[in-house]
Amino acid sequence: MTAASIAKDLRAAIRSGTYKPGDRLPSEAALMSNYGVARMTARHGLSMLKDEGLTVTRHGSGVFVRAFEPIVRDTTGGKADESTVTAEVDETSAGLAVRTLAVTAEADPPEKVRTALGLAEGDKVTVRERLHLRERKPVLFATSYLPASIAAGTPIAEQQVGPGGTHARLTEAGHAPVRFREDVVGRMPTIEEIEELRIEPGTPVLAVTRTAFTQDGTPVEVSHVVLDAGEFMLRYDID
Amino acid sequence: MTAASIAKDLRAAIRSGTYKPGDRLPSEAALMSNYGVARMTARHGLSMLKDEGLTVTRHGSGVFVRAFEPIVRDTTGGKADESTVTAEVDETSAGLAVRTLAVTAEADPPEKVRTALGLAEGDKVTVRERLHLRERKPVLFATSYLPASIAAGTPIAEQQVGPGGTHARLTEAGHAPVRFREDVVGRMPTIEEIEELRIEPGTPVLAVTRTAFTQDGTPVEVSHVVLDAGEFMLRYDID
Repeated sequence: MTAASIAKDLRAAIRSGTYKPGDRLPSEAALMSNYGVARMTARHGLSMLKDEGLTVTRHGSGVFVRAFEPIVRDTTGGKADESTVTAEVDETSAGLAVRTLAVTAEADPPEKVRTALGLAEGDKVTVRERLHLRERKPVLFATSYLPASIAAGTPIAEQQVGPGGTHARLTEAGHAPVRFREDVVGRMPTIEEIEELRIEPGTPVLAVTRTAFTQDGTPVEVSHVVLDAGEFMLRYDID
Repeated sequence: MTAASIAKDLRAAIRSGTYKPGDRLPSEAALMSNYGVARMTARHGLSMLKDEGLTVTRHGSGVFVRAFEPIVRDTTGGKADESTVTAEVDETSAGLAVRTLAVTAEADPPEKVRTALGLAEGDKVTVRERLHLRERKPVLFATSYLPASIAAGTPIAEQQVGPGGTHARLTEAGHAPVRFREDVVGRMPTIEEIEELRIEPGTPVLAVTRTAFTQDGTPVEVSHVVLDAGEFMLRYDID
């Protein structure tokens, strides 16, 4: 009996519902006894399922079938500033706590951001970095870039952006964002993202580039949003 | 020198642009010589990068920095039937070849599909399964379910659905789909998906559940679409 065969059996049992989301899988000791294999073989079989994202390990209590109970990130429906988890509210949003990590009033933009915002060489951006947490677990990291010509000297460049977030401030300043483009990719997390978002093994991230435009098509904000794919479902309603 | 240290060096060199997308990384032999390590250590260092999705192996020619040149799946813009890669065209769409794998005129729906389509116990669905290929590599697998009460007996239940695809046929039959909901998750592929889509190690899939509604809000199609995340970027334009 190989580790791959053990993994195959357990995988089939998870698929068929013998082990349901949240259920504990047999321990290494149980697998050793059931299959007559060495501990390393049992361990390797279990680790294969973990790398596939099918299970999670809770230290001290065992290996469990992963439950996917996603936060629904509903971009298009409802009141944008409340339902959009990228909104700059320093309170709860979609049940998530938001922590503003850093605000930089004037910085040099990355080249791609400069292009996306239609800025000239040497133009500065205001940068806001924030983390969203679900029950204390970080689940989303977002970096927003706005032209400093618009944002510097306003509450957007301060730690506390105020009620309604960045979009409310932009609207007050005559730069109401009314159209959004989201480009979504799925990929494995970087080492830094694994640490920052405490991502489980076998879990990708969703990386969203969100651009906000005013009525006349001027881009006023570019956000890079990295979401723990084990925690989110993105919902788009399209007419 | 450990495999992890070698991986760290190479990762940093990829990040900094020393090795660009498409470049070949040093061979196992070169790493053995440069770092004074055994072949297994060099090999393990390289395989760590592969598991992270940073590199791809081309057999016989080495390990290369992965290039991400995604197909942009633009759901909302342009002419839906041509630009939407879930459209049922049996020809090229967004540069992709489409192969209809199976069409079943009447089948029992999975429970979730039955609920999503608002069908009663015992109601049947028409099922269309298809594969999209980019330069002969499968990149997307889609299964569409439609109420058999609408689709059976029409070209939707035949191998060749005709010009404009399923949506054109639905429109002709008075069930024009005008609103769509897409729910997007990122996850690791199943063993079957790895085989079906020939997915590289360290590559997640994007799984999209797309529901089409008529003007009065009746769901007329539910599609499960699995995309190789190494091949796609999903684009949403939101008003």
